[in-house]
Amino acid sequence: MSKVLIIGAGGVGQVVTHKCAQRRDIFSEITLASRTKSKCDAIAAQISTPINTAQVNADNVPELVNLIKQIGPKLVINVALPYQDLTIMDACLETGVDYLDTANYEPLDTAKFEYSWQWAYQERFKEKGLMALLGSGFDPGVTNVYTALAAKKYLDVVEELDIIDANAGSHGQPFATNFNPEINIREVTATCRHWENGQWVESAPLSTKHSFDFPEGIGPMNIYRLYHEEMESLVKHIPTIKKAQFWMTFSDNYLKHLEVLQNVGMTRIDEVEFIGQKIVPIQFLKALLPDPGSLGPLTKGKTCIGVIARGTKDGQKKQVYIYNICDHEACYREVKSQAISYTTGVPAVVGAIMMLSGKWHEAGVFNMEQFDPELFLEVLGPMGLPTVVVDGGEWPKL
Amino acid sequence: MSKVLIIGAGGVGQVVTHKCAQRRDIFSEITLASRTKSKCDAIAAQISTPINTAQVNADNVPELVNLIKQIGPKLVINVALPYQDLTIMDACLETGVDYLDTANYEPLDTAKFEYSWQWAYQERFKEKGLMALLGSGFDPGVTNVYTALAAKKYLDVVEELDIIDANAGSHGQPFATNFNPEINIREVTATCRHWENGQWVESAPLSTKHSFDFPEGIGPMNIYRLYHEEMESLVKHIPTIKKAQFWMTFSDNYLKHLEVLQNVGMTRIDEVEFIGQKIVPIQFLKALLPDPGSLGPLTKGKTCIGVIARGTKDGQKKQVYIYNICDHEACYREVKSQAISYTTGVPAVVGAIMMLSGKWHEAGVFNMEQFDPELFLEVLGPMGLPTVVVDGGEWPKL
Repeated sequence: MSKVLIIGAGGVGQVVTHKCAQRRDIFSEITLASRTKSKCDAIAAQISTPINTAQVNADNVPELVNLIKQIGPKLVINVALPYQDLTIMDACLETGVDYLDTANYEPLDTAKFEYSWQWAYQERFKEKGLMALLGSGFDPGVTNVYTALAAKKYLDVVEELDIIDANAGSHGQPFATNFNPEINIREVTATCRHWENGQWVESAPLSTKHSFDFPEGIGPMNIYRLYHEEMESLVKHIPTIKKAQFWMTFSDNYLKHLEVLQNVGMTRIDEVEFIGQKIVPIQFLKALLPDPGSLGPLTKGKTCIGVIARGTKDGQKKQVYIYNICDHEACYREVKSQAISYTTGVPAVVGAIMMLSGKWHEAGVFNMEQFDPELFLEVLGPMGLPTVVVDGGEWPKL
Repeated sequence: MSKVLIIGAGGVGQVVTHKCAQRRDIFSEITLASRTKSKCDAIAAQISTPINTAQVNADNVPELVNLIKQIGPKLVINVALPYQDLTIMDACLETGVDYLDTANYEPLDTAKFEYSWQWAYQERFKEKGLMALLGSGFDPGVTNVYTALAAKKYLDVVEELDIIDANAGSHGQPFATNFNPEINIREVTATCRHWENGQWVESAPLSTKHSFDFPEGIGPMNIYRLYHEEMESLVKHIPTIKKAQFWMTFSDNYLKHLEVLQNVGMTRIDEVEFIGQKIVPIQFLKALLPDPGSLGPLTKGKTCIGVIARGTKDGQKKQVYIYNICDHEACYREVKSQAISYTTGVPAVVGAIMMLSGKWHEAGVFNMEQFDPELFLEVLGPMGLPTVVVDGGEWPKL
């Protein structure tokens, strides 16, 4: 029976709050805080048991410290913006509270994804006897756990890893992004990196593509190689991995829109003079596009996110594919968010349960693959994200 | 030997000024006027013989009257914006000067193309013994003359007309429009109309498409049916025409960009709130796209604009295809504008020569097909736009 503080009232914060409220046996008191308290109140109003709400600027350590002291939580679940990871970690250190997030720190002014800043907190968390669990979403998060499960149970040696994220859903709009369009477009247009023979290899954005035949009726979709942050911790903690790649589906329609918007300059992030005003084109584009929150009730279809681990078992070459299927409409019925927010929010709550129950608890800063994957997955399934393991089989080399 | 006043210093005004200056035997004194005198001066500086320049607001009749009185031209060539046709006609009536333009009047607030406003000047021009020649560009203009030639020389009865405008050139940019992008996009996205059995038939924008095999090495391109203003006067003055359609080429790439820009709302003409400012998306898009003037030196390839007239000759079914081929690079070498401006500007000068020489001169308001086409084409070829006639042959029904 623990008090928890959730920071961030976007789509993921909404799912986390709903799912914590479903487990009152663990989360006896729940506070949801964000820069805009009215967003917290709107989420609280969807839930039949009491949710406390609060206003906080997560960029400001003293404000965070005051709020944490006032509430006295056992754990802070950070589902705010990635720019705010370090200030929240600082506040947890100062108040002696455990920390969990779903995405690694990223400086505001560069689209640079790496764990160095957060791993640098290792000694300070250890000394204080506190735990920080990093990247407890789906990808990163459950994909790390799936990889750890492959290494523990299905393979003796994991040599190659393909993490594959498919959104086979449709919102029926000509063009819209599932989360903040500015961040979405910046990620997709960034230089790709994958791990090969002990080093990162760069390639042009979206330059590597395959058709992949997804299970459970989803069928073939085009997947594109991207950089994604869980690869950095996985190749560190599972050093037998010689090659790691991350793949995501994009429809031809999505890519067509992206190409045109780049061609005409609408994805530019610099200021353009326009009738005496300074306009950043991508921010104006964001103002024209549908609010991602408005897509929830419109989205149909499924997501399929998982990993194919390739290696050896008992001296034989072997592959295992571990994945989850999640249905957009079922998510919306349950927590008023589609599967993109659901698949991130639910693993955050499961990570919190692991920490609060002591099943995953140690002083220091940790990534998901460093703990027993089976304990996590035992809870994840009943919470709404069941795991499918296809043990053995042949999937095309990507 | 006549004085002429050219109003409008855009791409077409530049061509008209260059071509008038090549015929000093006719245009003894040339004045180029526009809202922005510096644009006139820049054009004058390209030409080795003297060009007078002046500032004038073509929306303002008294200003126009003052300028015309000061200069005393025999003819005003209007290549300003279509919104300004009526004010310039009013000024010509008041000062007793002949008038010529290349595009029919269009109210500023609606994309409505029709001759009613200008035809209403018929009695006033007639009474004053003045002439107004409407639409002396390429299309409208030369396409009207080609149709008149088919009716005079190649067919006894013109029954069907396909006017086909191909720009087989390329500027090498991912996306740009050959003239004002705001006007270009408004035209292309407007409801289509064609003439059939005595009435206008409407259809969705760009909904009718064919592949057409263009002559002289251009080869097959997709053509799309649009409304275009010359059809209105042609079906009035050549009433045997049962069906008239206008076709224009668009590349898949152009249409892809147009579709995406519509989807995301960038072609909207209403104001959008953006950080406390009011922004009209299509105007912001125009600011991002390349200036059409900058495409001149980059454009390669040809245009092919012409008419297929179908009817009977000596009781037999017969078709004739009359067209011009124009080369973007050759135009740029000659007058520092590509073929889109050249094919509009040269017929304006030829129309002026017809009027000033008295070969085409009558009191009243006239469209191009109302005069002898052969007299016009005799001058047009040597001025840079030769006519090709393919007399007889089979072109697919469009």
